[in-house]
Amino acid sequence: MQYHIRFDDTDLVLHLLDQRYLPTREDYFACTNTQSTIEALQVMVVRGAPAIGVTAAYGCVLALQEARSLTPNTWQETLRNLLIQLAEARPTAVNLAWAVERMKELWNPSFSAEELAALWLAQAKLLHAEDIACCEAIGKHGATCIEDGATIMTHCNAGALATAGYGTALGVIRGARDAGKKVKVIANETRPFLQGARLTAYELAKDGIEVSVACDNACALLMQKGLVDCVVVGADRIAANGDAANKIGTYGVALLAKAFNIPFYVAAPLSTIDRNTATGDEIPIEERPDREVTHVGDTQIVPHHVPVFNFAFDVTPAELITGIITEKGVLSAPFGPAISKAFTL
Amino acid sequence: MQYHIRFDDTDLVLHLLDQRYLPTREDYFACTNTQSTIEALQVMVVRGAPAIGVTAAYGCVLALQEARSLTPNTWQETLRNLLIQLAEARPTAVNLAWAVERMKELWNPSFSAEELAALWLAQAKLLHAEDIACCEAIGKHGATCIEDGATIMTHCNAGALATAGYGTALGVIRGARDAGKKVKVIANETRPFLQGARLTAYELAKDGIEVSVACDNACALLMQKGLVDCVVVGADRIAANGDAANKIGTYGVALLAKAFNIPFYVAAPLSTIDRNTATGDEIPIEERPDREVTHVGDTQIVPHHVPVFNFAFDVTPAELITGIITEKGVLSAPFGPAISKAFTL
Repeated sequence: MQYHIRFDDTDLVLHLLDQRYLPTREDYFACTNTQSTIEALQVMVVRGAPAIGVTAAYGCVLALQEARSLTPNTWQETLRNLLIQLAEARPTAVNLAWAVERMKELWNPSFSAEELAALWLAQAKLLHAEDIACCEAIGKHGATCIEDGATIMTHCNAGALATAGYGTALGVIRGARDAGKKVKVIANETRPFLQGARLTAYELAKDGIEVSVACDNACALLMQKGLVDCVVVGADRIAANGDAANKIGTYGVALLAKAFNIPFYVAAPLSTIDRNTATGDEIPIEERPDREVTHVGDTQIVPHHVPVFNFAFDVTPAELITGIITEKGVLSAPFGPAISKAFTL
Repeated sequence: MQYHIRFDDTDLVLHLLDQRYLPTREDYFACTNTQSTIEALQVMVVRGAPAIGVTAAYGCVLALQEARSLTPNTWQETLRNLLIQLAEARPTAVNLAWAVERMKELWNPSFSAEELAALWLAQAKLLHAEDIACCEAIGKHGATCIEDGATIMTHCNAGALATAGYGTALGVIRGARDAGKKVKVIANETRPFLQGARLTAYELAKDGIEVSVACDNACALLMQKGLVDCVVVGADRIAANGDAANKIGTYGVALLAKAFNIPFYVAAPLSTIDRNTATGDEIPIEERPDREVTHVGDTQIVPHHVPVFNFAFDVTPAELITGIITEKGVLSAPFGPAISKAFTL
């Protein structure tokens, strides 16, 4: 599951496993320029904050190549415009803007296009490798939170497919498994895009980890039946106080976990923490196209002309979170100081 | 929306609007004997406790006709066996067994098949008409719980389509509208069978009531945003203490409503209250076929060989319920005594 993001150095093509067609088809989507990279992000060929970051880093390499070939003399100005478009492809994941920013920081105006290209390609590969290492570190720390024999509920897909590999929430599950613990997973299907049913179940089953799928609606009943020992989810953006934006429905799962006294963990790299965002109230919540709600595949499930809500994320307040599992360790409440300290380690 | 259950007296055929194909196709399913009636119940051509009851009543008429033609001399024994099968078609809705029981109560062994047929047809029609009148009474009482201008969240479809007409939860909404109040509805889509998206949205839109559809996952966010003034749901079985079994996910919605201090009402006829069931713990929870979870239409959303949970119902404890809206009035806690009293009115 580490090869769903592959960059071809020779032809300068970014090959992304097209997650829209999982679990039934394993197709790759080719990004060859800025527009196709933006499209891949927007239609969710690739999703998940860290995977979006790595994709955006390679997207910068493609944007540079495009700028060079379109406007050889004014490539710098063209590139600047393309990067603005790329950084705005999706609003909630902080990693998108973060990755573009990290690439731009290396850009010294005195560099030739060729020099910048070499630097950026190396940097994108570094971010890619860093992300995998970071997830593995999250997994090691997170494994300490998981009891042997536990059943872990997760929401959406914070897995290998949401990162460069290994995963954040699913990294914790892999970390527990790699530490010799027996674990089982309940994947909430995660409407409307069904990342849990389609992606989490796919990648865990592929890795030989025992997984079942439940409709999001089953959450309270499964918790009431004592079938859930803890919840581990990812995050798309974490505010400085620990409030965590994640896939729509996460907040509800957190409230239910609290009602049943079940530990609720958020697993995410420090890069997901936006210290410029004081609290969750400041996190913009992306609204996505109606069709994700009104149709599943070609099947129409909502009558014509009936409006739908399609908020892509919600924000789980810090007080519902038992711990934030990062590559630097497991942070506990109060999260504000714990986050500040983690950034100085 | 009162004609989704039509009985043809001349040909003895029960025509049911096939709810599996809504909202995109309005087909009718013809029940001509016991087996096709059982099939209609099991595959959910028709669903919803009161609609199941009315269907079962007509199913008794069809079973009698079948027994007479199959075994003219031993029709009574054949009929008894057919009724047992019919009563067991689905386990959770108390109305199914209740309706069959009410038909059987009229059966005096001295009756000829012809006499019984006339009696049962009249009784089935009476139950049908009673159910509509009952829903209208629920609507009148329930309207007093709804503020003018309110947005009401509902889960699943406790509507005209779940009853003989008018609906229970949606009867309350229609009752509020008919009392001159302006109301809006948020229909939770209600995975896996999507009764909210497909049926509630369909019948409310058809009736000119403003309705939007949200994924079940959006519930906590919508409540947090202040977009939900109250919740009204139906019930498949209510225990003597007020614990209410309803579509999977209802319990979660009730817990979230409590977290946000939003009133949570259950609307159901007294026939849904099973006084022989002391508490919700005794209510059997039907598990339904995997395919309802693994596929939407022809689209497979769960990988092969990954197990799924498909509990069809959950039980909302009485303490989460603000009021039980019945045809005899709105019951308040403590529900045990209130229920006893309602049965004596």
